[in-house]
Amino acid sequence: MYNRFDLDKLKEECGVIGIYAPNAKNTSQLAYFGLHALQHRGQESAGIAINKGGQVHYYKEMGLVQEVFSDEIIERLQGDIAIGHVRYSTTGESYVTNAQPLVVHHKGGALALAHNGNLVNANTIREELEDEGVIFQTSIDSEVIATMIARQHKEGIENAIKNTMKQIRGSYALVITCGEKLIGVRDPNGLRPLCIGKMDGGYVLSSESCAFNVIGAEFIRDVEPGEMVIIENHEIKSIQYSVGEKKALCSFEFVYFARPDSVLDGQSVYVSRRNAGKILAKEHPIEADLVIAVPDSGTVAAIGYAQQSNIPFGEGLIKNRYVGRTFIQPDQKMRERSVRLKLNVLKENVAGKRIVMVDDSIVRGTTSRQIVDLLKGAGATEVHVRVCSPPVRYSCYFGIDTPTRKNLVGAVNSVEEIREMIGADSLGYLSIEGLIASTSMEECSLCSACFSGDYPMEVPKQGSKYLFEKR
Amino acid sequence: MYNRFDLDKLKEECGVIGIYAPNAKNTSQLAYFGLHALQHRGQESAGIAINKGGQVHYYKEMGLVQEVFSDEIIERLQGDIAIGHVRYSTTGESYVTNAQPLVVHHKGGALALAHNGNLVNANTIREELEDEGVIFQTSIDSEVIATMIARQHKEGIENAIKNTMKQIRGSYALVITCGEKLIGVRDPNGLRPLCIGKMDGGYVLSSESCAFNVIGAEFIRDVEPGEMVIIENHEIKSIQYSVGEKKALCSFEFVYFARPDSVLDGQSVYVSRRNAGKILAKEHPIEADLVIAVPDSGTVAAIGYAQQSNIPFGEGLIKNRYVGRTFIQPDQKMRERSVRLKLNVLKENVAGKRIVMVDDSIVRGTTSRQIVDLLKGAGATEVHVRVCSPPVRYSCYFGIDTPTRKNLVGAVNSVEEIREMIGADSLGYLSIEGLIASTSMEECSLCSACFSGDYPMEVPKQGSKYLFEKR
Amino acid sequence: MYNRFDLDKLKEECGVIGIYAPNAKNTSQLAYFGLHALQHRGQESAGIAINKGGQVHYYKEMGLVQEVFSDEIIERLQGDIAIGHVRYSTTGESYVTNAQPLVVHHKGGALALAHNGNLVNANTIREELEDEGVIFQTSIDSEVIATMIARQHKEGIENAIKNTMKQIRGSYALVITCGEKLIGVRDPNGLRPLCIGKMDGGYVLSSESCAFNVIGAEFIRDVEPGEMVIIENHEIKSIQYSVGEKKALCSFEFVYFARPDSVLDGQSVYVSRRNAGKILAKEHPIEADLVIAVPDSGTVAAIGYAQQSNIPFGEGLIKNRYVGRTFIQPDQKMRERSVRLKLNVLKENVAGKRIVMVDDSIVRGTTSRQIVDLLKGAGATEVHVRVCSPPVRYSCYFGIDTPTRKNLVGAVNSVEEIREMIGADSLGYLSIEGLIASTSMEECSLCSACFSGDYPMEVPKQGSKYLFEKR
Amino acid sequence: MYNRFDLDKLKEECGVIGIYAPNAKNTSQLAYFGLHALQHRGQESAGIAINKGGQVHYYKEMGLVQEVFSDEIIERLQGDIAIGHVRYSTTGESYVTNAQPLVVHHKGGALALAHNGNLVNANTIREELEDEGVIFQTSIDSEVIATMIARQHKEGIENAIKNTMKQIRGSYALVITCGEKLIGVRDPNGLRPLCIGKMDGGYVLSSESCAFNVIGAEFIRDVEPGEMVIIENHEIKSIQYSVGEKKALCSFEFVYFARPDSVLDGQSVYVSRRNAGKILAKEHPIEADLVIAVPDSGTVAAIGYAQQSNIPFGEGLIKNRYVGRTFIQPDQKMRERSVRLKLNVLKENVAGKRIVMVDDSIVRGTTSRQIVDLLKGAGATEVHVRVCSPPVRYSCYFGIDTPTRKNLVGAVNSVEEIREMIGADSLGYLSIEGLIASTSMEECSLCSACFSGDYPMEVPKQGSKYLFEKR
Repeated sequence: MYNRFDLDKLKEECGVIGIYAPNAKNTSQLAYFGLHALQHRGQESAGIAINKGGQVHYYKEMGLVQEVFSDEIIERLQGDIAIGHVRYSTTGESYVTNAQPLVVHHKGGALALAHNGNLVNANTIREELEDEGVIFQTSIDSEVIATMIARQHKEGIENAIKNTMKQIRGSYALVITCGEKLIGVRDPNGLRPLCIGKMDGGYVLSSESCAFNVIGAEFIRDVEPGEMVIIENHEIKSIQYSVGEKKALCSFEFVYFARPDSVLDGQSVYVSRRNAGKILAKEHPIEADLVIAVPDSGTVAAIGYAQQSNIPFGEGLIKNRYVGRTFIQPDQKMRERSVRLKLNVLKENVAGKRIVMVDDSIVRGTTSRQIVDLLKGAGATEVHVRVCSPPVRYSCYFGIDTPTRKNLVGAVNSVEEIREMIGADSLGYLSIEGLIASTSMEECSLCSACFSGDYPMEVPKQGSKYLFEKR
Repeated sequence: MYNRFDLDKLKEECGVIGIYAPNAKNTSQLAYFGLHALQHRGQESAGIAINKGGQVHYYKEMGLVQEVFSDEIIERLQGDIAIGHVRYSTTGESYVTNAQPLVVHHKGGALALAHNGNLVNANTIREELEDEGVIFQTSIDSEVIATMIARQHKEGIENAIKNTMKQIRGSYALVITCGEKLIGVRDPNGLRPLCIGKMDGGYVLSSESCAFNVIGAEFIRDVEPGEMVIIENHEIKSIQYSVGEKKALCSFEFVYFARPDSVLDGQSVYVSRRNAGKILAKEHPIEADLVIAVPDSGTVAAIGYAQQSNIPFGEGLIKNRYVGRTFIQPDQKMRERSVRLKLNVLKENVAGKRIVMVDDSIVRGTTSRQIVDLLKGAGATEVHVRVCSPPVRYSCYFGIDTPTRKNLVGAVNSVEEIREMIGADSLGYLSIEGLIASTSMEECSLCSACFSGDYPMEVPKQGSKYLFEKR
Repeated sequence: MYNRFDLDKLKEECGVIGIYAPNAKNTSQLAYFGLHALQHRGQESAGIAINKGGQVHYYKEMGLVQEVFSDEIIERLQGDIAIGHVRYSTTGESYVTNAQPLVVHHKGGALALAHNGNLVNANTIREELEDEGVIFQTSIDSEVIATMIARQHKEGIENAIKNTMKQIRGSYALVITCGEKLIGVRDPNGLRPLCIGKMDGGYVLSSESCAFNVIGAEFIRDVEPGEMVIIENHEIKSIQYSVGEKKALCSFEFVYFARPDSVLDGQSVYVSRRNAGKILAKEHPIEADLVIAVPDSGTVAAIGYAQQSNIPFGEGLIKNRYVGRTFIQPDQKMRERSVRLKLNVLKENVAGKRIVMVDDSIVRGTTSRQIVDLLKGAGATEVHVRVCSPPVRYSCYFGIDTPTRKNLVGAVNSVEEIREMIGADSLGYLSIEGLIASTSMEECSLCSACFSGDYPMEVPKQGSKYLFEKR
Repeated sequence: MYNRFDLDKLKEECGVIGIYAPNAKNTSQLAYFGLHALQHRGQESAGIAINKGGQVHYYKEMGLVQEVFSDEIIERLQGDIAIGHVRYSTTGESYVTNAQPLVVHHKGGALALAHNGNLVNANTIREELEDEGVIFQTSIDSEVIATMIARQHKEGIENAIKNTMKQIRGSYALVITCGEKLIGVRDPNGLRPLCIGKMDGGYVLSSESCAFNVIGAEFIRDVEPGEMVIIENHEIKSIQYSVGEKKALCSFEFVYFARPDSVLDGQSVYVSRRNAGKILAKEHPIEADLVIAVPDSGTVAAIGYAQQSNIPFGEGLIKNRYVGRTFIQPDQKMRERSVRLKLNVLKENVAGKRIVMVDDSIVRGTTSRQIVDLLKGAGATEVHVRVCSPPVRYSCYFGIDTPTRKNLVGAVNSVEEIREMIGADSLGYLSIEGLIASTSMEECSLCSACFSGDYPMEVPKQGSKYLFEKR
C-alpha cells in the first residue's frame, strides 16, 4: 500500500468526511476531494454515500480514492448530502464487505454511517443483539451502531443516536446521514478528532481540517467530546450528550497520523511537531554536525531539533516518491536491504559528519537498524538517533493497529538495548511529559496509553499472556 | 449480457447449487463447475460460499462464473460444504450488494443462503421487522429469510427454517449451509425446481439436473414441494413442512428457462419441447416446404414440428456465437437492424420456400418482425410463425421479470393483430392445454399464470393501472 | 479461447475486412461489426486501422472484438477507409506485437495492411532483406510484404504491390489502405477467400460474405485468384496480376472454418456441408435409429445425413453456450472428463438407440473417445461415427495450424485403428472425392493437400523427420 | 501522471538502465529495481528487454514500473543481460508503440536498444532511408538508429554502432544489447548523462547513479561524451569514437530532472542545488522572516538560501503525497484552485511573516500565481519569489519537452512583468553564471541553451514564427 511510503509505523484506522451542500451540483465531487486530502488516514478502501431527499446511493471499493472513483461514478452520485470514508490497508482476503460507509435501510428510511475509531464493548453488544435474533453481515462496529440506532427508531433519529452513544464505549468519530440531516458525533473522551467547516452554501465535517482548503471551506470549530451536531435546514444544532469525561485526544495524531497542516482541538500539528523536536533537543542534547530527518514524517521535528540545538538542518536521506502498492516480490538479498527501495543516502551530505537522525517513532525497530547502517556506510562518523515520541509499550484499544508485544521493541527492551540493536551511537526518546508539552495541551487532554498503559476508560480484560495482543 | 444471445425472452431470476463433500479437496471447484452448468439461469453475478467446520468464507462479484472466479480464488475457498448462486442480468448501477449467496452471522454461527424465486409477502414482513428495529442492507428476499431464521435461533436451525418457511409465501428454491449441514428447501407449490444428486462421497442440490453430469453426480430425486432436506453426517433427512398445496411448477421452465438436458419433476425438458412442437403442428398445421427454428431456443420444438408435419427440418438462421456483454453502442441505423448482429439468414435454404418458423415464445414481439423481414428479404415466399407457448398476458409474481403491459404484446393485442404486426403469413400459438399436455404432467402440476392469470396463491393487490407492472 | 467451443479442430489463422466509406461517419463502427461477424476466424487479437486523408490511426489488442474495442476507441477512430483483422488464439506469451493490421510509414505515406494466410518463401525473403540491412520488429509475414512494397515505392503503390505479389509465394488474402485507396489482393491459387460487397456510399472487402448482412452490404463478387482490386474515387479497378495458376481454395473452409451462411467462390457453405452429409450417408450407410451431430460444427452435415438415410435427425448432445476463455484449471479427475464442461448428453434421446454421430473432422481424436463414451454411458446401444471430411494426414503450409504428426491421429493410424481407439461401433470418413463433389466445384478448384499431400505449389523441403512439423 | 506531483515543470524524456549479470538469476529483477529508482525520469511507460544467449524477450507497457511489471512477468524474463527504459508522461492516444526498449531482428540477430535524448537530424535521415524503401513502425529515434546499425551489420556490431554514431547528431544516452554484449553510448557533447557501476559479478549502466544503491552496485565512472563502452566477457572495453566536441551536459539535470542523490559528471546534484540556493541569496538578498520551498523540487535550494541568508528555513506548503494519475475531472471552480489538490498552506507558519518562497524554475508561471495567492491568503505579509534557475526562454532540441513560446512566460515577459503576473512582492531569478558556478563545472561543460539560446550544435532552422515551437 501507499503507506509503505512510511516504514515501521503504527497504522491509523480511518478518516471520515461529511458534506452538507443542498443545491450544490457537485456534492460528491466535494466529498471526493475531501477524502483525497484524508488519504493518509487510510489506503485500503474508499467509499462515498450520497443522500438525495432521503434516498441513499453509494459506491465503495478496495483502493485509493483516485483508483476507486471515476468521473462516471462521481457523476452518478448526485445528491445534497454526502459522507465518505477511507480505511487503512490490510493484506490478504478482499475485505470490501468491511468497507465503509455502511448503508442500511431501517424504519426511518435509508441511513448511511462512516466511523473512525474502535468500540471496546462492541462484542458484548453484538452478542446481546444476536441473542435477540439479529444477524450481522460484516465485522465492523458501524453495523452494531446502525442496528442499535434502528432499534430505537421510534424515538426519532436524534434520540436514537443519542441513546446509542450512551450505550457504546470506545473511540469514535462518526458521520451519519439520514433523511435531510448530516450528523456528526465524537466520543466522550474525544479520542478521535472531528471538526466542522463552513463553505459557500453548506457545511463540512472532517476528521482533519486539512481537507477544508481543497474544497473551499473554512474551519469553524472542533466537534467537542461527547457532542453530537445535527446539520439540517442550513443550520447546525448541537447536543451535548455526555459531559464530564476526561478529554483524551490520541497523542499519536500529533506524533504521526495527522497531516502537519491540520489543526486538532485548537493545536497546530505542525507547531506541535516542531515543539517536540525542540523539547527533544533539550531532553537529549548532543554535539553533532548535521540534523537530518527520516523522511517524511520526521522532517518537522528535525527542523525543530536543529533550531533548538543550533546544529544545521539538512537532508541526508532521499525518498523514492514512486512507492506504490504493487511491488514485485524481491528475492532474499533484495529483501535484506528493502529500505533501499524507499530511501537512498546522500553521501555528500553525511560523509565525515556526526549525524542526528530524527524519527517520529520506533515501533518494531526493524528499519532503524537499516537506516543507521546506510548512514554509517556512507561515512557518517556518528549516528545519534532521536525519536519524537516515547517508546510504544502498550496495546491500543481505540482503533490503532498495534503489533503484538514480541514485535513491539519498546515493550520488551530497555532504551540501551534498543540503541545497541539499531547500532546507534546514542538514542534518545521524547518523554511523555515532553510530548504533552509539545502540544500545549493539558496532560489530561491527551491519551498516551500506548506509552504509559494508562487507559482513559476500562479496556477488555485479558490474561497477561494476551496483554499486548489485540486479536 | 450473454443472454442477449436470446432476444425478446422472459428472464429467469437465478440458479442455485449446493455441494456436500466433506473430505473432498475440491468442494469449491465442484461448485464452480456446477454453477457453470447453470449459467443460463443468470448471467449478472455469481457467488460461492464455502463452509469449513462452521466458518463460512465467500466470494461473489458481477459477471459470468468464469469471469468472477480465478484459480486463486477457488483455491482459497477450502471447505466441506459449498453453496453457489447465479443471478440474471440487469443493467445500470452495480448491484453487487444484491449478489448471492448471502452470508450472515447469527447466534447459531455463520449462515449462508442462496435463493431462486420471489416472495409475495416479503415487503409486508420487511416492514414488520423494520418496526421492530431491524436494518436491511440489501433488497433481496434472502436477507428477510435470514433475519427470520436468526430470530428463531433458539429453536435450532432446522425448526427455525421450518417455522420461517411457514411464514413466507411465494416461490423459492433455497440452499442453506450452517454448522455441519447443507439444507435444501422448495416452496409448497414447487414453483421453482430443485433436485438432489449423489456423488462419490457426497451430495449435490441443484436447480437443474444438467449440473450433475459435469461434476460426476447422479440424479436421485427432486426435492418435493413443501419439503426441506437436511444433509448431515453423510445422510439425507427429509422434513415435509407443508402438505396439500397445489403443485405448480413454473411452465416457463419447460418453454424456455431450463436446459433441454435437464429433467424437472420427472419430465425431460427436451422431450417436453419436442412434444410441444408436435402438438403445435397438430393445433396449427400448414402447408410449407421447410421448418426452421429461431435458434437456439426454438430448435427442439422445430424438430418436433417437422416430425409431426412431415415437412423437412432445416436451418434458416445462423447465430453469431460471439455475442457478449460489451458491445459498442450501435448508431440508429445499426440499431434498427440489431437482430442482424446476432442472426443471419441462410439465403440458399429459404429462398423460394414456404417457411414455418418456430419460436419458443413471443414477449414484446419486437424481434419477431425483424426476423420475418430477414426471411422475406432472403426470398421466403411465405413465413408462418409458430410459437411453442401461449401468449404471455399476465405478470409473474414468482421471480420472472415480466415487462410492463404496454410492452407485452400478447396482453394488449389479438393474435391476428400480432400476426399483422410481425408481418407473418400466419401465426399460431400453442394452447395452454397443449403446453400442459406436452409435459405429460397433470394440469394442476404446472403454473401457467402468466398465460391465464390464474395464480396458484393470492398475489399482491394492485390497482388496475399497475396490473402488469411489477415494480 | 472462445473456440474452445469447438474441440479437436484445426485452427484458422485470420479474418480480414476492409471498409471504403468516404463521407460516412461510422466507418470504424462498420469495421467493428464486420469483424464481429468474422470472429469465428480468430479469437486471439483484433485490430482496426483507419485512414483519414492518408493519415492512419489504429488500435489493436489481445482479445475478442468486443473486448478489444469500446465506444470511446471506436469514436476516436474517425476516417474514410478502415481495415480490420482478427487473429486466432494461441497460448503463452503476449503476442500483441504480432497483432494486425500492421501500420507502417514509408515514402508513400502511411500504409496499413491485414493478412490472412501464410507465405512459404517468407523466410527466404526475410533473410535476403536482412542481408541488405533491413530490421524486423515482428514475426508476421505482413512485415515482409510491407517492406517489399516500400522498397518499390517509386513505381507507385499499385505497381509496388503488384510486383511484390509476384515475388511472394503462398496463401494470402490481403486488405491494404494507403493514400485514398482501399486495396484487396488474393493469391494466385485463391487459397484464402476474399469477396467484395457494395453498400450505400461505399464498398466492403471481407474474408467471408457473412459479414455483409450486418453492415447492410450486398455481395457483388469474389476477388479472383491472382487479382488485385483497387477501390478509389468510389470506383473499383481490377488488375489481374497473375493468370493460369491452378485454383485451390482451401477445402477446410467448407469443412469447418467458414460460417455456414457464407458463400465462397459461388458455393454456399451450408449447401456444401449438407451435401457432404448426404454423400457421407451414401459412402458409409448404416442401420440406425437416430442421427445426431457433434454441435455445432457437425449439425449441417448431420441434417444432410439424416435426409439421405431417412434416419430421423435429433439432438443427442447439448452444448454449454457459456464457454469462455478464463476457465479455472480443473483437477486431474475433472480434466479426464473435460468434454463434459462443454457437452452434456441427452439421455432421453439416445438411451436404447443406435446412434449415428456426425462430426465435421477428427484431428487428434482425443475428444471423440470421450463423446462416444458419453453416449454409451447414456445407454446408446451402438455409436457409429461419421466424419464429414477425409483423415487429416499432412501438414498445411498455407496458414492452418496443424498439430505435429504424433498428434495427428489420421497420419499414423488406419481407420480401423482409429475406430478402436475412439470406441465406435463403426467409423466412416468422407472420401476426398466426396468432399470435392459436395462443393460442386471442379477438383482442381480445391486444395486438399492436408488429406492427400498434393500441394498446389512447392512447399519447403524438410527431412522426413520433420515432415509433419511446421516449426 | 505521477509527475503532476510537480507543477509547471519541464519534462524529461527518459531514463535508461543496462544490467550485465551473466550467471545471476535475477537479472530482470535488478533491471526492475534500477528502473524504479529512475522512475522520476519518466512515468508514461516502462519496459525491459532481456538477452539470453542472443535471444531477446521483452515486455513494455504504459504505466509506472510497478504497474507494468508483475512477479510473473519478471519471472518469465530470464537472461544474462537486461536493458530497461522509462518514458515520460504524455496524454491522449495510447502510445505503447513508442514505448522502449525497441527490440528488432537484424542480420546480426536480435538487438535491443533504449534511448534517452533527441536527434536533431533524425527526420533528415528518416527521409533518406524512406527514399531507399525503409519502413518505420514508430516515431521514435531508436528505430532510425537501429535501422542504421542494421544497414552496416557487415562491419560487425561495434563498428556498425560507431559509424552510426558518427552520422547522427543530437543528444543521446544509449544502452544496447546484442549477442553477448551490453553496450553504452553517450553523445559527443554529453548532453544526457550515463554512468557505469560495478556489482558482484557484473556491471550496470544507468542514466543516474541513484539507481546503484538499490541494486547493490558501486559507482565506477561516467561514460565520457563521445565514448562507447562495450561490456562482454566480464570486461569493459572503451572506444572513444568522437573527440574535441564541447562538453555540454544539460543544466536542467541539476535544476530539476536528476534526483538529488545522484552524482553527474563528478558533481553532486544535491550540493549543486544547495549552492544554487546560496548564490541566489547573494544575487537576490531580501529581508524576510522565513525561507520556504515549493516542495519537493525547491527544498534543497531553499535550505541553501536559508543558510546563506541566515533567515530560518521552515515549511510553508504541505504536499499531498497521494497524487496519482487517475483524478476525476474537477469542475471549473475546482480547476481554478487546482494547486490546492496538491499543496496546502501551513497557516501557522506563514501568517504575519515575510516569506521567501524558493522554486526551482518557472516555466509557464501558471501555478506560481496560485501559490503566492495561497500564501497571502494565509496571512503572509510579503512573498518574495526566488527561482533557482534563469528564465526559460528558448526551445530545447535535445529531448526536453518545452512549451510553445506563448506559454513560456520567460520568453515573452520581463522579470518585472512576471513578478506582477504572479503577484509577488519581489522576484529574483538565478543568473546563468550563478547556475554554472553552482555546479562547480566550467561554463563550457554545461548546456544552457534554453536560457541563452546558445546551442551546442546547429539546430533545425525554422522561420521566426516557429522559433519556439518544437512541432
